[in-house]
Amino acid sequence: MTYEDILAARARLDGHAVRTPLLSAPQIDALAGRRVLVKAECLQRTGSFKFRGAWNCISALPDEQRKRGVVAFSSGNHAQGVALSSALHGIPAVIIMPSDAPATKIDATRDYGAEIILYDRFTEDRDAIGEALAAERGLTLVRPFDDPQVIAGQGTCGLEIAEQAREARVTDATVLVCCGGGGLSSGIALALEGAAPGLRVRPVEPAGFDDFRRSLEAGTPQVNAPGQTSVQDAIVTPTPGKLTFPIGHRLFGPGLASTDDEALHAVALAWKWLKVVVEPGGATALAAALFQPEKIDGDTVIVTASGGNIDPAMFRRALDTV
Amino acid sequence: MTYEDILAARARLDGHAVRTPLLSAPQIDALAGRRVLVKAECLQRTGSFKFRGAWNCISALPDEQRKRGVVAFSSGNHAQGVALSSALHGIPAVIIMPSDAPATKIDATRDYGAEIILYDRFTEDRDAIGEALAAERGLTLVRPFDDPQVIAGQGTCGLEIAEQAREARVTDATVLVCCGGGGLSSGIALALEGAAPGLRVRPVEPAGFDDFRRSLEAGTPQVNAPGQTSVQDAIVTPTPGKLTFPIGHRLFGPGLASTDDEALHAVALAWKWLKVVVEPGGATALAAALFQPEKIDGDTVIVTASGGNIDPAMFRRALDTV
Repeated sequence: MTYEDILAARARLDGHAVRTPLLSAPQIDALAGRRVLVKAECLQRTGSFKFRGAWNCISALPDEQRKRGVVAFSSGNHAQGVALSSALHGIPAVIIMPSDAPATKIDATRDYGAEIILYDRFTEDRDAIGEALAAERGLTLVRPFDDPQVIAGQGTCGLEIAEQAREARVTDATVLVCCGGGGLSSGIALALEGAAPGLRVRPVEPAGFDDFRRSLEAGTPQVNAPGQTSVQDAIVTPTPGKLTFPIGHRLFGPGLASTDDEALHAVALAWKWLKVVVEPGGATALAAALFQPEKIDGDTVIVTASGGNIDPAMFRRALDTV
Repeated sequence: MTYEDILAARARLDGHAVRTPLLSAPQIDALAGRRVLVKAECLQRTGSFKFRGAWNCISALPDEQRKRGVVAFSSGNHAQGVALSSALHGIPAVIIMPSDAPATKIDATRDYGAEIILYDRFTEDRDAIGEALAAERGLTLVRPFDDPQVIAGQGTCGLEIAEQAREARVTDATVLVCCGGGGLSSGIALALEGAAPGLRVRPVEPAGFDDFRRSLEAGTPQVNAPGQTSVQDAIVTPTPGKLTFPIGHRLFGPGLASTDDEALHAVALAWKWLKVVVEPGGATALAAALFQPEKIDGDTVIVTASGGNIDPAMFRRALDTV
């Protein structure tokens, strides 16, 4: 995992991914008490940054291997990134999804042309299903975050942040990144180390799922207590990745955590002032900027709005907060 | 009004306006039956393209004149564009708004730092109020569309469409533009004439407010029947502008009109698949692409999503359609 891997990923993504804008609004700045620049990855293809890593990983496979197709486990944004990347490459994709995943996410993944295999989370072993499929059809597994090419793909978002911050004359700032397994956070951190060393990543997680925050503090990977739930469903992974944690340990500042109420309020404020649709898990970094300003340094903060795949009922719930 | 005026406007806007992205989604393409590229001007500063024209007009004023300040009449998006442009220039702005304008729009305009003067639409003469103010304080009137510098500012959106279409390898397409007084439509048409002659503007208006469509057909300006209402409130002007109509007559293809139901459905589909917040009047072009495909030629259509200033109740109403 080097800066050069991210530059190579950028070349692969050129002309295929959206260069998402860095948005701002004076009303958001006023609420946060400092300048807030929002990297709107919800505008990425498939509605989240996950397209970047999936596209890069699939593009980097040897031709013969890629042609046989790919398989992924996901109930959400990674599923859609892999499905669309595969469709654009003209290769088969099998996505293994829990049968109780939201119908809207299953439908969207199928819309992008993937074969969906539903499994029962309580009685079936998804890894066994995936391994059997991979062996039988020669499919390659595309991991959601703990893969060098996936991290490099997400890192292209960091290269854009570096360029866009420079255009906005920002050379010294905290970059709050919505963090689940840490693929986006670690990719951005590696990109910024090379391209904009004055910008430093701090991961933001859902309250109760702050394994990365606690792991950074402890210096070793920690695991979340089981049995919790969160509306920030896109980023409720149990523990940091094997590849992402060492990168984070070396490069991240201290982690933060936002409550579900804060995330829903941030969804509504992004709707109101930035005109973008963000899901709760994609709004957790903005929520930290808005509602925990005392924990952040400096006169400018950059935040990722990582995804926007939210159903109407949840969106209405968010609108109730403004 | 020449292409060079638009190039000059671009230089003035550089570093101040957002270069809004050209978005797409396979689900939108499938619904429309052709490729649809959406110029997301709802992501422009103040939530609509109006910032471009206001910024250009105010920037182009002689220093002494600008310092005295500006005045504008508007109940919506132009108000916010003028208010923020003035605040950024550090000059006073007075916006004359009807006392029954939506509270959210009045509040947003005040947020941008403008002085608001409310008048009673039924008993007071806004022109007289404006003229008295302009004379007393030496303010310059910034017109919403019928001004060469305003049209040139909106034309910068057309320069970006030309570049972004080229990047997407589109050189021949219809460009559907949400049309009220015709400032955006005529600015884009002039820009495309110079920068991408294979792209041709067709204005889209609310049903019942299709004065531009009928004027183009008749060859002379027509007026809408009074007493009608529309949720597409941003673009319900009574008749084409004195400057915009001749440009449209020379450069526009035939006009189209979308019903309120179509516009609200387009708002919801933009929310669902493009992750942008669009107001009904800013969704009328997308609505035509989605629901009147038989009236459009070619395998690609470009549409403007012109603005996103919508209140929560109207947005909930739109969400009911998906």
